[in-house]
Parts: sequence; structure tokens; C-alpha cells
Amino acid sequence: MKKQNATYGDIANYTNLSKMTISRYFNQPHSLADETKEKIEEALKTLDYTENKFAKALSSGKSGIIGIITPNFFYNFYTALIDAFIRIYPKSPYKFLVFTSDNSPETERSFIAELLSYRIEGLIILSHMLGSEELCKYPFPVIGIERESEFISSVDTDNVSGTKQAVKRLLQDGCEVLIHINTGTSPALPSYARIKIFEEVAVRTGTPHQCFMIPVEIHTDVHKLYACFEKVCKTLHSKYPHKRIGAFVCNDTMAHLFLNSALTNGFKVPEQLEIIGFDNSPVSEQAILPISTVGQNVNRIVSQTVRLLDRQLEEKKNLSKDAPTQKHLIIKPKLLLRKTTLNIK
Amino acid sequence: MKKQNATYGDIANYTNLSKMTISRYFNQPHSLADETKEKIEEALKTLDYTENKFAKALSSGKSGIIGIITPNFFYNFYTALIDAFIRIYPKSPYKFLVFTSDNSPETERSFIAELLSYRIEGLIILSHMLGSEELCKYPFPVIGIERESEFISSVDTDNVSGTKQAVKRLLQDGCEVLIHINTGTSPALPSYARIKIFEEVAVRTGTPHQCFMIPVEIHTDVHKLYACFEKVCKTLHSKYPHKRIGAFVCNDTMAHLFLNSALTNGFKVPEQLEIIGFDNSPVSEQAILPISTVGQNVNRIVSQTVRLLDRQLEEKKNLSKDAPTQKHLIIKPKLLLRKTTLNIK
Repeated sequence: MKKQNATYGDIANYTNLSKMTISRYFNQPHSLADETKEKIEEALKTLDYTENKFAKALSSGKSGIIGIITPNFFYNFYTALIDAFIRIYPKSPYKFLVFTSDNSPETERSFIAELLSYRIEGLIILSHMLGSEELCKYPFPVIGIERESEFISSVDTDNVSGTKQAVKRLLQDGCEVLIHINTGTSPALPSYARIKIFEEVAVRTGTPHQCFMIPVEIHTDVHKLYACFEKVCKTLHSKYPHKRIGAFVCNDTMAHLFLNSALTNGFKVPEQLEIIGFDNSPVSEQAILPISTVGQNVNRIVSQTVRLLDRQLEEKKNLSKDAPTQKHLIIKPKLLLRKTTLNIK
Repeated sequence: MKKQNATYGDIANYTNLSKMTISRYFNQPHSLADETKEKIEEALKTLDYTENKFAKALSSGKSGIIGIITPNFFYNFYTALIDAFIRIYPKSPYKFLVFTSDNSPETERSFIAELLSYRIEGLIILSHMLGSEELCKYPFPVIGIERESEFISSVDTDNVSGTKQAVKRLLQDGCEVLIHINTGTSPALPSYARIKIFEEVAVRTGTPHQCFMIPVEIHTDVHKLYACFEKVCKTLHSKYPHKRIGAFVCNDTMAHLFLNSALTNGFKVPEQLEIIGFDNSPVSEQAILPISTVGQNVNRIVSQTVRLLDRQLEEKKNLSKDAPTQKHLIIKPKLLLRKTTLNIK
């Protein structure tokens, strides 16, 4: 193992400067003569000094650490977001401390207390345990992604546009019945628009339609999900025989399971049944029939979140008394056509 | 927003104690009288003081932060590991800073320099860019998971046992030809045992066999992977007609794509072709035919890694001059039988 890092004392001894001067080099470098700075820089190289972000954080109040709280790693959308945040490391001044929380508001509060003790500069929140009214009171900018964010800033996918693109495609392909499969989000969440707009378009175009809501307690239980989708398939066979059905599904994991279930239960996809998922998860491409999907622009969501954070931290520095201005950014998704739709021109 | 955190000065003013006493409360609490401690504790509550992990890290040299470097978030095995590490937060004294690195040794070195500046206490490494001989020189314990680890400690799956369980099951089910599909790991990696033991068992039992290696440049390109698996299916049809084939595949993502390809290319699974994957990724359960797989015990890998880290940090504290004793732990995987094998008793 290498020896311990050089201290201010070591650097002072080596350069024949005072410890105070060394401290000023790290904290108020502009107050030193260029000659002194060069002398210290040379010593740092020779002594193999590594910067101490903790000491820096303590003197500047800036840790460079951003907290992220995500509900789970089960849905690819969350994994893909975390991955994209981590991948911007080399280009970003921030590091991310990630917590998973799908338990209780108490757990989430204790996580935030932990993050506070690391002097995080901001919080990116994807989970749904604490309301934005509570979150906005913390002494750092909070940005929500695809969650209730009445009192905090947010970056969300344009769920209205995504749903319209999907349903229009199903109608254009000649689907006579529209169905929507959803895991049942609350009206306070941005993704609720997927249910609302689906119903609006179906009603407006006079298309027979039905929503299937998957009970929250089976969301991660594959056996129960397959049993549930088998029931959906039986309902469709008996209720809409000889009709072309168009299914818009709230995420690709569910769309994949529904596709497999439909194929196993005798549906011809896409001739009898078209399926469009949401997210553009890897599984949508890997499925036995590549699944058409509303592609979320994860990279853009992440880059816009980081830019928004930058601006809010800048704003906070300039007028230290007040909360930063609330901003709500909307990112356009794009329908990707694969093999579960006919894609009639 | 809440006001800024109370300083030692604020606490000293409030309690009429010296700043030195306040500092001792945080750093050598045993040196203070109970009465003094109670006085300070009361002040902390009233002043709504939050602990400063940076100040603590600076005085104790302990940040509580562990670095994790993972190659990617594409393979579920890595995502599942990261998830399990993050889920032990409430029970563990550590926080994790995660980096993704499948680029170059230079990038990886600069990541480690970053981590050093945060005074990490240990490093968990899953990536393959830097050799263990270089890693063992850093001034903190390094634990490798499923990577080359000649000079560092490691926690690995028992790949020998996992492969034997899989190949024995294929033979017991009456497979006449054995194939292995692998993404081509280096002989220095623990997972190389999957190739080696597959060949050993096939040779020892006199079973006709073949290995298919997927070129590294198409590992994440689903279209090219499907094209590649279509060729494998054609080879199998023409080379081994009317034979029962048993396929052992190096991970579940590949097993899933191969299963879909085999079904599309006219194979009856499991009657004509049996498939066993590796990892027990969610996709192995979600596939159109649930895939039999060698289940890695991710939770045990993670708990053993954290325990090993604990012991090494303890050891380092006690004999500060030396590197901790190298330890290599092996975790037993378990074959999970699903629908891609006949499972003959």
C-alpha cells in the first residue's frame, strides 16, 4: 500500500512556507503570488499529494455530491436513468449517492437525513414516498423526475404526446378495439396522463375501449402477472371475437409479459392484436417479437436535470436567502415502430 | 428553505462552553463529563444541528464511503449487485459511490483518483480494466467480484459447481449433444471456469460437444446477436439432425435471445433442445418459456463482501503498516429448474 497522504505540515516543511500559506493555496489561491503557487504545485507533485474533497467541502461548503432516491431497480426506466447519471461523471462536477426507497416515508426521511450529513448540494428524486410540499423545505434544490412535483422543480416525459402517438398509430393500423394496461398510478403523477389521454382519444374517436389495471401487490411477481395477463387474453377472446385489438401498455416490462401471454394464448401478433409499450427498455428489443414502444429520451432527461441543477445552484449562490425558482421541463418521447404493430403508411 | 446548519461557534455560544469542548464532544466524547455532554446534546436539538460527515471524516480519517466500479448496467448481474449493495444501506455503516467503466484503464485510474479525493475507505471492483497488481497498491482494501484478483481479495460465485450442476442436468435429461454459448471471457477471470469445466465434463463423458463464442464487438447489439444466434440454430439443424441438444449459456440475457431464436427457427424447447442459463436474472423468469438457470446468490455475495470489508478495515486499523490479509471467498450457486429443461427425476 502507498503511504498516507501528505499533510499541510508536510507541504509546509518541504516548501519552507507556513501552514497558513498552504491552507490559503487550497482555499483562497487568488491571494497568493504566482511564484508561491508554483512552488506549492511542485511540492504537491513530489509528495504525491491527493486532493481532499472533505477538507475542501468543509471550507467551501460544497461537497459536489448530489443525492438520488429511486423507488427500485426492477423497472428498467429507473436503472437506465441511474446509469445515464453515472455515465456523465467524466463530464460533470457532481458525484451521486444513490438510495433505493420503496418502503415508507420514515425510511425516506432517514435517507435524506443521511444525505444531509454528507452536505449534498442537491437531490434528484424519482420515488413517491414524500410529498413535494415536504421536500421543498430542505436546504438544497430538489428536482423530481416522473413524480408529483407541485412544490419542487421537475423534468418529465411528455406523457400526453407519447400516448397520443401510440393510440394514433393503433387507430391508423385499423384497430377496432383499444385496450390500455396500466399498473395503476395516482392522478398526482405525470404518468397518469397515459390513462387519461388514452380514454380521451378513445372516446373522441368513438372507439370501443377498456382499461385493465394491475393490482399493486403483484407488480413484481412474474407468476401472478402471467396469471393476470392470461385472464386479460381470455376476456379479449370472449368479448371481442374477430375484432382487431390495439393494446397500449404503460411500460415495456408489462408489454413483454403481455406479448408472451398473448402469443401463448393463441393471438396472432400483430395481425389480430397490436401492442405498443412505453420506455424503450432493452427487453422491448430483446423480446421474441421486437416490441413497438414510446421511447423515453433518458439521456435528454438526465442532461436537462443536470443543467437545471446547475442553474438552481448558481441562483442559490447569488441570492442566498430564497428558494430557487421552480421550473418544470417536459421532454418529448418518440414512437419506435417494431414488429408488434403493422405500421401501415 | 431551512437556515444553514449551526456551527461549533453557535453551539459554544448557546451552551457557554468553549469551542474546544464542542470539538471534543464530537471527536473524543469519552473525555467529557456526562453533564457537559447532556448540555451539548440539548443544544444540538434546539439548534437543529445536523451531523457533518465531512468534518467527522476530516478528524477521524473515516468517510464511511466505499467506491464501487462496475463495467455496465446492461447485464442484470451487475445491476442486481449494485441494487443489493444499495439495499443494505439501512443496516450498514457504508455509503457507496458508484462509477461505470467499460472504457479504458486511463478512465478507470482517473475514477479511482476521484474516489481517493473523497477519502474512500475501500473499493469494490467488478470491472476488468486494471490488473489486481496495480489495484493492490492503493491505500485501502480492494475486493474484486467475478474478476481477476490474484493480488487483491475476492468474492466469486463457485463457477465450477454451477457449471457441473447445469451440464449434469442436461446429461441426465438425455441430451446427446452438448453446446456452450459464451461471450468469450479471458482465462484470468473466474467465469472462465464455465468454458473449461463444460469441456472437461463433455470430454470425460464422451459426449459430442461444441462451443460458440460471441464476438465482443456485438455483445450489446441485439440485432447482431439475433443474426448470430440464427446462424447457431442453422448449424445445429444441419450438423446434429434428430439429436437431442443440451445448451449451457453463459448468462440469462444471452440464454433469452438464444431461446427466442431457437423457437423462431423451428426448435421444440425442451423436447429437442434444452437450455440452461446463468445468473437468475429477472428476464429468465419473464421469458416466453421460463428459463432454467444457475442462480447466483447475489444477496450472499454482497453480504460476504461487506463482512470481508469490515474485517479488512478492522485489521488495517490494528496493524496500520501492512496490507490486509488476502482472502478469496467462494459462494455456491443453485440450479433452478424451469420450463427449458425436461427435469427428469
